[in-house]
Amino acid sequence: MVQRRKVSPASPKDAAGELALLRLIRQRAGAHGRGGVRLGIGDDCALLRLKAGEEMAVTTDLSIAGRHFRLDWHPAESVGHRTLARGLSDLAAMGARPVAAFLSLGLPNELTLKQESRAWVERFYDGLLALANAYGVPLAGGDLAESPIAVADVVLTGAVPKGAAILRSGARAGDTLYVTGQLGGAAAELAALGADPKRFAGHTTATMISPHLYPQPRIAQGLWLRKRGLASAALDVSDGLSTDLAHLCEESGVAAEVDEAALPLSAGATLKMALHGGEDYELLFTAPAGAKIPRRIAGVPITGIGRIVPIRRGKPLVALIGGDSARALEAEGWQHFS
Amino acid sequence: MVQRRKVSPASPKDAAGELALLRLIRQRAGAHGRGGVRLGIGDDCALLRLKAGEEMAVTTDLSIAGRHFRLDWHPAESVGHRTLARGLSDLAAMGARPVAAFLSLGLPNELTLKQESRAWVERFYDGLLALANAYGVPLAGGDLAESPIAVADVVLTGAVPKGAAILRSGARAGDTLYVTGQLGGAAAELAALGADPKRFAGHTTATMISPHLYPQPRIAQGLWLRKRGLASAALDVSDGLSTDLAHLCEESGVAAEVDEAALPLSAGATLKMALHGGEDYELLFTAPAGAKIPRRIAGVPITGIGRIVPIRRGKPLVALIGGDSARALEAEGWQHFS
Repeated sequence: MVQRRKVSPASPKDAAGELALLRLIRQRAGAHGRGGVRLGIGDDCALLRLKAGEEMAVTTDLSIAGRHFRLDWHPAESVGHRTLARGLSDLAAMGARPVAAFLSLGLPNELTLKQESRAWVERFYDGLLALANAYGVPLAGGDLAESPIAVADVVLTGAVPKGAAILRSGARAGDTLYVTGQLGGAAAELAALGADPKRFAGHTTATMISPHLYPQPRIAQGLWLRKRGLASAALDVSDGLSTDLAHLCEESGVAAEVDEAALPLSAGATLKMALHGGEDYELLFTAPAGAKIPRRIAGVPITGIGRIVPIRRGKPLVALIGGDSARALEAEGWQHFS
Repeated sequence: MVQRRKVSPASPKDAAGELALLRLIRQRAGAHGRGGVRLGIGDDCALLRLKAGEEMAVTTDLSIAGRHFRLDWHPAESVGHRTLARGLSDLAAMGARPVAAFLSLGLPNELTLKQESRAWVERFYDGLLALANAYGVPLAGGDLAESPIAVADVVLTGAVPKGAAILRSGARAGDTLYVTGQLGGAAAELAALGADPKRFAGHTTATMISPHLYPQPRIAQGLWLRKRGLASAALDVSDGLSTDLAHLCEESGVAAEVDEAALPLSAGATLKMALHGGEDYELLFTAPAGAKIPRRIAGVPITGIGRIVPIRRGKPLVALIGGDSARALEAEGWQHFS
């Protein structure tokens, strides 16, 4: 839990800044008694309640400066948003409703000092808490430490009726393969960011369409699919379609065919970005051939992009079908800044 | 959750090492279907179940190389043990039974390479999983990333009957103040470690008494107190008695007096170490004056060290009573390597 002594105060001035930061977090998180949070920041543990018949989904995602974000490329608000979005997207993929978030944050001292009225860390919380509020998920705890590099580990807890979570392991031969939204948009925006790191400096809120800086977790779509029991398997496209589809096939013990012409490419995205670009945070899911999957769920387009087939000796686990030819789609998920 | 692409493989050899590491973790964690864990490592989220009438306690603790441990001082097994012990100690302080642990681990590549048959990371897991097994808590998920410095964020989930958790805020004037075990032992051992960093290189298991390298979380004592409803407030002594007692007083709206002569000093510990040394991971708790607190709980001595009093203008929040004199006990919790 957040404890005020974990950041070493280098001077009384720094100590005051740190206490002010902790007060700010505690005030803004406002988690006590909200939703399933019976006790939020301030004790040894937070206390969470589920409804009768529910189980708890838990996921953790570690973000490290220089690997998952760059201080010289990403606005602080985007780093906060993306940190939380990664965890919310994992809940979405199980069809869980968010209950509470926790954040362990390690920061160099300079990121806690004010620069033109606000410190980097305040802007980080602006971005994180704006997304948290948009999805009704309170920040119920975490930890804070001084660190040579910026690291943020987010924990998301969610609730799902017992036995109803959508797993990666439920896909069966004959199922149709679907994806929400578009693919490749995050990679395309990242390429633009790399070409001109100052270009997005003013993108400090999630109000614009910005698939890399401000991805939208598909919570509503995951809940819709889970409540109707239509999806046989799901995961989120965090590492790239080629890599994540291979995960789904491995966990389900099946193979898959993807129709190249059916892929919903984002504006500006190449086929390679759509296949291997990571961090789109769309849902990849399967449903039996007879299931009635609508063309939109909660405003987001749904596209059939292929099918699940049995594993066959000598055939690739994931094949890309283009025209009359099929080729193996190797897992080449995009590597952070490599 | 653990995803195999999050560590960039620098070469096919490294990639194989990383996959082998993930297989190892998944095999050794063995969490599926164990206790409250319905689904462990391998999907977007883990799934946890509580018993009827329980709520979930959640805590996160961030450990960073150079701040919470030193690669040149601490055996890798101790780093793993201490990482988990911090979280278990938070559960103990609420009186919660452990349900599942999660670990987000960021490591420089060299810590994943074998040195004399075993890699640092394998020895880290040896220490962490030995403690996890001793307390029956499965490792149900986490994340893994390459990082310029070693960072480990541990998440502990526990279960407690609704409304029965021991909070920091329940102490009342007239209560007696107790502590489990001894104080200052972790600081004394750390001082010895600093004087001769090679001295404890062979301390690779928790079988010896070693309060700094292998602290024992007081799970059994926390459960005992919670089940009998005897403690009015509790927290764990992670930042030092002077600092943690101030937290308890602030959260409860009370003041406290500590009897210097009553403090149970560890062998080799000075008064200063007992007052301000951190990481003893003993429980500090309060109970009404009439409560029958035994001299030992589950084999660990319990010592009355003072009392809770009302806040009085001009009087310190925490006072240290020695002979006929009282002086303010300022919060001077020990700073990691500062």
